[in-house]
Amino acid sequence: MRVLVTGAAGFVGRALIRSLGDAHQVVALDRDCAGLRVERAIAGDLTDPDALVRAFADPVDAIVHLATVPGGAAEADPALGWRINMDGSFALLDAAARHGNCPRILFASSIAVFGDPLPDLFYGAHKAMIEQWVATLTRRGAINGLSLRLPGIVARPRAPSGMKSAFMSDVFHALQAREPIILPVSPEATMWLMSVERIADNIRHALEGTSKFGEPYAVTLPAIRTDMAGLIGEISRQTGADPALVSFVPDAALEAGFGRQPPLMTGSAEALGFANDISLTRLVEAALRRIGDRHE
Amino acid sequence: MRVLVTGAAGFVGRALIRSLGDAHQVVALDRDCAGLRVERAIAGDLTDPDALVRAFADPVDAIVHLATVPGGAAEADPALGWRINMDGSFALLDAAARHGNCPRILFASSIAVFGDPLPDLFYGAHKAMIEQWVATLTRRGAINGLSLRLPGIVARPRAPSGMKSAFMSDVFHALQAREPIILPVSPEATMWLMSVERIADNIRHALEGTSKFGEPYAVTLPAIRTDMAGLIGEISRQTGADPALVSFVPDAALEAGFGRQPPLMTGSAEALGFANDISLTRLVEAALRRIGDRHE
Repeated sequence: MRVLVTGAAGFVGRALIRSLGDAHQVVALDRDCAGLRVERAIAGDLTDPDALVRAFADPVDAIVHLATVPGGAAEADPALGWRINMDGSFALLDAAARHGNCPRILFASSIAVFGDPLPDLFYGAHKAMIEQWVATLTRRGAINGLSLRLPGIVARPRAPSGMKSAFMSDVFHALQAREPIILPVSPEATMWLMSVERIADNIRHALEGTSKFGEPYAVTLPAIRTDMAGLIGEISRQTGADPALVSFVPDAALEAGFGRQPPLMTGSAEALGFANDISLTRLVEAALRRIGDRHE
Repeated sequence: MRVLVTGAAGFVGRALIRSLGDAHQVVALDRDCAGLRVERAIAGDLTDPDALVRAFADPVDAIVHLATVPGGAAEADPALGWRINMDGSFALLDAAARHGNCPRILFASSIAVFGDPLPDLFYGAHKAMIEQWVATLTRRGAINGLSLRLPGIVARPRAPSGMKSAFMSDVFHALQAREPIILPVSPEATMWLMSVERIADNIRHALEGTSKFGEPYAVTLPAIRTDMAGLIGEISRQTGADPALVSFVPDAALEAGFGRQPPLMTGSAEALGFANDISLTRLVEAALRRIGDRHE
């Protein structure tokens, strides 16, 4: 099938394109599509009507909507966050509905929708609102939508991401490189994590499901729950790094926002075939393998 | 206090201005403010930045956000609906948050947020999404917001309103004027109704509550639940009109959308001091009185 991927040049987008491989045709939409190996790449913005016209020029069977202004960036520029996360999503979904074939649409939502104990970020509210819009258009039969709530993804590249949760990935990079790192959370901080390959596998699973998934309009993906001490122990064991490289200067807001994630129950998602990384060991292996690939 | 009212020239806005009377200063914002007796009237649109600057030129203590593109009109022009109901609300709430005094904000939401058994209207989704945004800004301490879910309001003026539920008001006008009317629902259709005066009283009650209402970010207002046969009987009794003036050609979508409202439980709203019209008799009295006033 032909799959339109927004935010295709991002970390998740690139992993998804690798996973879709030759099995599907990918139309990529992103501001800068350099280096993407896809059927067609469209450099543009969701709020640019011309880019959307070009994106739907050939029949599209499915859409994976990854493009977003993430948490920290949306806090820094709320108007930009609204414009891309809300108006951009409206424009994309409107174009998809007009496409006329009730396309499969996977919207990359986030565990940030839950709010307290997670933070009340603009970003989380945007995701919750667009989940609602996806559900409305799906109930109306205009699209065949599903929102997937993504947990923390490790290990993202070290470059500034505009994400408040960047420390979850930075600890991998630091220990792999034998560098000291100061974390803004305590060793007791609990997180929900997934490797980017597993994220891509889950998106592909949802994409290849030919029919609707029955009732749910949104699915919280399973994740590995770990505390920071356990994560550091496992990264150190696999890399041979000294865990004493890590020190802790907890920031109350970040600890409250990203370090108090309760036990995660995702039985309904698992019944639908979505999966986590199986174990902390395999999650860390996958994350370190990705860092290694990039260093090659 | 000084109260900014958006959509001030509408049916609810005018009733609210009458209710606030001399007790509060009203700043009215609407596209056409002709005939409004208020401290200051601003002719403009929520998406016009200049109108918002003028609206907040003097310190505002509270905002009642009534302006909206209603159900039928939002279905006819989804882009306009999004622009006013979503982007307009964002702009207003952003200006309110920047005002810096954590103003009291009452957002006129709707029972349309419930969806099935009510219809999945764009309008209902807009209201649900902005409820979420109001709650987010309130949890962050930027505003002191509360969403009030309004039931069907009777009797609205006969002029085209862009509302799919206009028949609920039209039946009052027809019987009062001894004119035949064909209703698009059956005699068994059940509705949730409130007079516009009671709506205004409830908004004023929420406005004059000086502190937040504790937990809820949204309140479903109590309403009188009646079936169409009972409503016609009561209007006929009070007006002396022949109920045989009414005939029924149910439209399946309207019957499903507006005529299957289940029993309404609003104990938490009542505990907060919100009230319905007490009885069907008094609801009909209030609605007919309003029609009479307009005829004078």
